Amino acid sequence: MTAWMERPSMAEALKERRRRLAALVERPAVLWSGQSIGRNYPANTYPFRANSHFLYFAGVPLEGAAIRLDSGKLELFLDEPGPAHALWHGEVPGREAVATFVGADAAYPLAELGARATGAATLPATDTTTRAGQTQLLERTLPASHELDRADRALAEAVIVLRLSHDEAALGELRRAAAVSVVAHQAGMRVTPKAKYESEVRAAMEGVIIANRMATAYGSIVTVHGEVLHNEQYHHTLTPGDLLLADVGAESELGWASDITRTWPVSGRYSPTQRAIYDIVLAAHDACIASMKPGVEYRDLHLLACAVMAAGLVDLGILRGKPEDLVERDVHALFFPHGIGHLLGLDVHDMEDLGDLAGYAPGRERSERFGLGYLRLNRPLAAGMLVTIEPGFYQVPVLFGDPLNREKYADAVNWERLGQFADVRGIRIEDDVLVTETGTEVLTAALPTRAEAIESLVLAGA
Amino acid sequence: MTAWMERPSMAEALKERRRRLAALVERPAVLWSGQSIGRNYPANTYPFRANSHFLYFAGVPLEGAAIRLDSGKLELFLDEPGPAHALWHGEVPGREAVATFVGADAAYPLAELGARATGAATLPATDTTTRAGQTQLLERTLPASHELDRADRALAEAVIVLRLSHDEAALGELRRAAAVSVVAHQAGMRVTPKAKYESEVRAAMEGVIIANRMATAYGSIVTVHGEVLHNEQYHHTLTPGDLLLADVGAESELGWASDITRTWPVSGRYSPTQRAIYDIVLAAHDACIASMKPGVEYRDLHLLACAVMAAGLVDLGILRGKPEDLVERDVHALFFPHGIGHLLGLDVHDMEDLGDLAGYAPGRERSERFGLGYLRLNRPLAAGMLVTIEPGFYQVPVLFGDPLNREKYADAVNWERLGQFADVRGIRIEDDVLVTETGTEVLTAALPTRAEAIESLVLAGA
Repeated sequence: MTAWMERPSMAEALKERRRRLAALVERPAVLWSGQSIGRNYPANTYPFRANSHFLYFAGVPLEGAAIRLDSGKLELFLDEPGPAHALWHGEVPGREAVATFVGADAAYPLAELGARATGAATLPATDTTTRAGQTQLLERTLPASHELDRADRALAEAVIVLRLSHDEAALGELRRAAAVSVVAHQAGMRVTPKAKYESEVRAAMEGVIIANRMATAYGSIVTVHGEVLHNEQYHHTLTPGDLLLADVGAESELGWASDITRTWPVSGRYSPTQRAIYDIVLAAHDACIASMKPGVEYRDLHLLACAVMAAGLVDLGILRGKPEDLVERDVHALFFPHGIGHLLGLDVHDMEDLGDLAGYAPGRERSERFGLGYLRLNRPLAAGMLVTIEPGFYQVPVLFGDPLNREKYADAVNWERLGQFADVRGIRIEDDVLVTETGTEVLTAALPTRAEAIESLVLAGA
Repeated sequence: MTAWMERPSMAEALKERRRRLAALVERPAVLWSGQSIGRNYPANTYPFRANSHFLYFAGVPLEGAAIRLDSGKLELFLDEPGPAHALWHGEVPGREAVATFVGADAAYPLAELGARATGAATLPATDTTTRAGQTQLLERTLPASHELDRADRALAEAVIVLRLSHDEAALGELRRAAAVSVVAHQAGMRVTPKAKYESEVRAAMEGVIIANRMATAYGSIVTVHGEVLHNEQYHHTLTPGDLLLADVGAESELGWASDITRTWPVSGRYSPTQRAIYDIVLAAHDACIASMKPGVEYRDLHLLACAVMAAGLVDLGILRGKPEDLVERDVHALFFPHGIGHLLGLDVHDMEDLGDLAGYAPGRERSERFGLGYLRLNRPLAAGMLVTIEPGFYQVPVLFGDPLNREKYADAVNWERLGQFADVRGIRIEDDVLVTETGTEVLTAALPTRAEAIESLVLAGA
């Protein structure tokens, strides 16, 4: 039996999603799930991940399937597995069983799709082979996902309206993924005192995810070099003075993501300098979450975090000047060169396949500013929206070593004082925050953020 | 620093591989490493795996690189990482550092490749985007990897000659991967008595692989339903009477694979029926390895395993007749429907991207026989060849339940007696065996195969 067939059926929620879509677009839509991709040769594949738009409306990760959505109805296109399939891969539910489980109104073999796809809008599939089939079947070329036009663009915009606001079925999955990520981080902290390499901590964290039958939502970052923002390396040794930054999140069987970062001391105790910076980052994190509610601009949260961190760095004597002026001049971006966070849902950067269409409200575009250009989300908050809040402080050699930066910010940065904080290479604190009617619900709140609580979790493994 | 730069340089071994290639083909060859593939959106990629033919000659998993091999010389084509790369992914070695590490004779930006690739033979890249670029650059269409012709086919045949016989540099990597897989299996056995789900055992095993900074060479199989040959499910609960079949192997950082299967009792003790069948499978395994040496036909090892198992099943009263007659009639394939093993190297089914070109000696083709058609390797053994030996016994519902099989084998199978072995759903025992001048070296020998030794490892975790 396929694992997801043992989950409660999401058929009612899927029906409501289709109804909401039908209220926004008239044209039928066809979405493809995609297929497995060969890793080193065709039969040795990466773990299959269904296309997120397909998952949103079909609910379950069917491979090589398509759905047609029209006026609130769902048609499923799926071939029956052959007899050799049962020998090698076991019995899997047939077309009718799947159709019942997802609440489809009709189900057909894939060969029927051609006749029923005429004139349908679509969103590009993830893998190139499926995309080629999609182009052929619809008899038209498809631009890249972030450059859609006409009916496809209208479909994308409608899907964004839906996916921006999570329903209870989605929230159930998102909470499950968050809960597993919390346990993974706790396990990572606990093994740290006895671990020799970053890889051992990573193994403990991903082990929790695997044991809970989930996948990692993105390539884990588990490193003592937190100053490398997307550090894919995990072979470094751990030494007692290091901070370990872990950005690891689980994805549920049905594809819903979580995304947590914590930064803890290898020794179990932050040094005074590490603790001082940690508390500044935490203050920014807390200030953002405290001010979140419907209507608040996400960009303002970003600027709030920048201002809180700038103020903290002024207090420490690392920066000089008024915090608001420092932020205006992008001085904060020397230490905090990324955005305060992003949308979270079926994708860890939700709907990033559509470029900035989901992240940026209509009419808004990325800023050219050093301190704002990396902001992935620029919309007013609304109830049902799930975002990450992830301020960070990094000492990045390519930014600090740049003579242009050093000259431009000569008056604003006390480089000598900063040199006393050399044991702080990178700190990030990231939680998954749901906007509610009245404020927020932090889905990852079970994992502490306060320095003393983190220290206790690490020391418990010593 | 990139992890593989801390490994000893393989430059001398790579030079020797190029020399051997130059002795077999005259035409220059260009090979591409490939690029990362998006999982759910382009920036959220699967872990990058370089193309195996590229890895064989370049040694290291460079992304977005190409090499040109001509008369024993190596030219490397690789772009320097941009400044944004350092911010997000850290400092990586530049073109010259990589060229020195791999012993390249010259190194150029990728843009130079077009001018230098004219007339070169090639092997198709793994990912479709790279393949499209390859086609464009060489100005010719490329057939699928298993349908190559002319110069490309000649290149493939030469590469097969080389890759069929592992040099010391390759064996060093293969032994490292095997050693980690051994520890992973020991960890899996140890956690079993306290585990509730298959997934927990899988987590322990893959955790060892991650902690050792390796990847899984293929999708792990960790299941109480061993009768499903490639069971990708791991959500079942473990109950004391179950056998757990684990087929899990690590791949080294440089891409070299291992592949081990063990089948252990969840309770720590095989039941008498499980033990009886286990010992038959083990007898087949041991008989194959004992008879391996250069010149022996791999197909004969397969038939030997079939005969040993048939004899054992006759002794148990499950089969009736002479073992050789039973094998002749493919009765063994009811229980053992796959081949005795396959080539192992950079790919877990080594060079399977080339179809049967590597697995089958020139002039040989797959058999139509039920009992031989799944054999992936049909060559005489030669020193330096690494193969798996993996006999198994399975009670597969689609084979047993097939009325045609039941009628055809009515005289040969005592179905009532077989019914007494219902607690044996699937058993496989798999090791990685190197053919040497005088016999064999079992790279995975550190992991016991005898039933008592397996029981001890499991009970150690109780």
